[in-house]
Amino acid sequence: MTDIDLDYDLAQEIIDEIKTDPMGGWLSLPDTPAEDIDKIKALAKTVRNSSDFLVCIGIGGSYLGTRAIYEALDLDSTAKCRLLFAGNSLSSRELKKLLHLLDGHDFSLNVISKSGTTLEPALAFRILKAALVKKYGKDGARQRIIATTDPSAGALREEATAEGYQTFAIANGIGGRYSVLSPVGLFPLAVAGCNIEKLLMGARECRETQLDCDDLKHSMLVEYAFSRFYLYDELGCDVEVLASFEPSLLYFNEWWKQLFGESEGKDHRGIFPASVIYSTDLHSLGQYLQDGRRNIFETFLRFSPETGSLTVPKLDNATDGLDYLEGRSLTEISNKALDATLKAHDAGGISTFEIAVLDDETTTGISERSLGFLIFFFEVACALSATLLGVDPFDQPGVEKYKKEMFKLLGKPSKTA
Amino acid sequence: MTDIDLDYDLAQEIIDEIKTDPMGGWLSLPDTPAEDIDKIKALAKTVRNSSDFLVCIGIGGSYLGTRAIYEALDLDSTAKCRLLFAGNSLSSRELKKLLHLLDGHDFSLNVISKSGTTLEPALAFRILKAALVKKYGKDGARQRIIATTDPSAGALREEATAEGYQTFAIANGIGGRYSVLSPVGLFPLAVAGCNIEKLLMGARECRETQLDCDDLKHSMLVEYAFSRFYLYDELGCDVEVLASFEPSLLYFNEWWKQLFGESEGKDHRGIFPASVIYSTDLHSLGQYLQDGRRNIFETFLRFSPETGSLTVPKLDNATDGLDYLEGRSLTEISNKALDATLKAHDAGGISTFEIAVLDDETTTGISERSLGFLIFFFEVACALSATLLGVDPFDQPGVEKYKKEMFKLLGKPSKTA
Repeated sequence: MTDIDLDYDLAQEIIDEIKTDPMGGWLSLPDTPAEDIDKIKALAKTVRNSSDFLVCIGIGGSYLGTRAIYEALDLDSTAKCRLLFAGNSLSSRELKKLLHLLDGHDFSLNVISKSGTTLEPALAFRILKAALVKKYGKDGARQRIIATTDPSAGALREEATAEGYQTFAIANGIGGRYSVLSPVGLFPLAVAGCNIEKLLMGARECRETQLDCDDLKHSMLVEYAFSRFYLYDELGCDVEVLASFEPSLLYFNEWWKQLFGESEGKDHRGIFPASVIYSTDLHSLGQYLQDGRRNIFETFLRFSPETGSLTVPKLDNATDGLDYLEGRSLTEISNKALDATLKAHDAGGISTFEIAVLDDETTTGISERSLGFLIFFFEVACALSATLLGVDPFDQPGVEKYKKEMFKLLGKPSKTA
Repeated sequence: MTDIDLDYDLAQEIIDEIKTDPMGGWLSLPDTPAEDIDKIKALAKTVRNSSDFLVCIGIGGSYLGTRAIYEALDLDSTAKCRLLFAGNSLSSRELKKLLHLLDGHDFSLNVISKSGTTLEPALAFRILKAALVKKYGKDGARQRIIATTDPSAGALREEATAEGYQTFAIANGIGGRYSVLSPVGLFPLAVAGCNIEKLLMGARECRETQLDCDDLKHSMLVEYAFSRFYLYDELGCDVEVLASFEPSLLYFNEWWKQLFGESEGKDHRGIFPASVIYSTDLHSLGQYLQDGRRNIFETFLRFSPETGSLTVPKLDNATDGLDYLEGRSLTEISNKALDATLKAHDAGGISTFEIAVLDDETTTGISERSLGFLIFFFEVACALSATLLGVDPFDQPGVEKYKKEMFKLLGKPSKTA
């Protein structure tokens, strides 16, 4: 990406800092004890056997990571119990559509909120709980609600205790955008048939090879974190574009944008996180990336080639000029497009970085293991870069400001404000 | 948004320039003759009656506008013949998923490509044509392929003539990203049950009130186009974020990003187009927009309130603190959130612009009429701003660069290069 002298001692210092930060609890999620995994899998099995749909009610960090993995692995095509996502907007249209989908099906609710009072999920939970009670009665409904919330405090914990819901705890020291490898993400993903042990294995492999390696000089993670800060601080690159070639990574991009945007966008500083899905966006933002302002750098994701890819069929007297591609796989062509885009954008004068997560065991290209690796990679890289930037990687003071305005406009009683 | 002295004579000059530009043909699309509309509707009816799915094969401007309107209107919930989109990536996984969806259903193909040799749609067309022939035989397949392409030249026109496909012409003077109100978008949308006359009516209303009005001082369009250039050129704002509060506008955002990114991102200049869906992203990029770098401005879309919105149900001994919202509609709450976000971001020091497209006839909030207005609004505003920026609003020289690299890597015979 760039030839800079990285200060590996500083890197080690920051890593140690993060490891002991009270909000660094997520660093030990890859070591989640077997009994916790077993509890998750057991309850997941119960839900899978009793429900066609599990509605995940959450927003921000209680939503994006789970959806990112669910879509990246295309679990919707294979899940016996499919996931639906609610409480992530204020749209009546979306919630009506979801209620319509549930109509005539068995379903359960996983409400995910540390406090239980965040507006969007709390509203959706009220509406969906009413639908659940209507279908199964008060007692039946209680047995179909799983609350993922604070270990002891808060409105949702209170309700869960009073009503006897099954619960998972969001341990202290794990902020929303760093929580996907906790029960926040693991439980619904397990319900959908995701191999959560493989997910955690990938994260462990990332930690072993990128953080706890003998020599940080071999850590692509440290190089990435320091390079992006250098590009921002020294070269004035204030926009980073995450680029991949698989449409199913759309929500992985969204997860990544929250992670970096919410961690770094403070004190009028921070790299603005944007994303593209190629080759689609080579016919859209591609022009800008090739020829527009040069304050951008681009981070490419490369996965193992999918096995059994479609190939280009032979065509008699074709006019499309594609004969030279006959018999070749889309995966090969897509990988060549990735190589070509790296080359063209580099030649166009923007710095590019490639993160290759190759999993020799996968047939689908994108696997639990590769996603677990990537998630942990970006979480640590984000904490590193934000620290270099001089901001707190773990708070989000700005998120409160529109809420204050909104509660004023909605006339929220100040006692509960 | 900003208090600047707009040069209305210059605005008029540029508008006249664009109107006479050989690539300004899209400006007259709102006047599409009734016989052309009738032809579109007649063929749409035939397809609707013979197919469960119409697969739209296209990329960039031959894809994003159609999908934007299809999703914004949620036509997928109501269409007798649903749209599927192919040829917009090189993903084997996506195309396999689509082929699986088609399995056992009647379908037709609308291949949309001016040249017929663009890699992604040409590859998808080969694969889908093979599936079509397999199901209906060579002759049956011919009758289920509609080609939207160059009026006279190019590989696809050649094939359509040879095979006797039904065709629509992409008139000269209409570039891809300005083509959604041409048969490129109108035909598939008509198949899906979109009221295309209302779409064009909205565009006409935009042209009458924003361009051909007695006094450009009343044109929000001119104010928007000049303000964004002023923010870029004078205040150094080089990122614009399009913000709306309806998840179904995700692809409208994507259409908008292509329009502005491909039109302005040249000669190392241009405003970088980004987008958010609120309130979802208030829990994601919201932190950055509130407190991050101040080189951003934000453009909000407001639509008419949906009628029959869901309301907040009453709950006995609730702990969620939402009692004060009981009986109120999500639409009202969402609109208050919009007001609050405008206020908070403004107070946070970023310029905000609001475009309200209120349609008193709609019950769904987002209507054909409001979308037609918005599309035409942004197309003209984009042509204006790009001209102010000193770049050609209608070319995309950078898009060719990665293709050259890719064809080299794929070993494309130079004669067809």
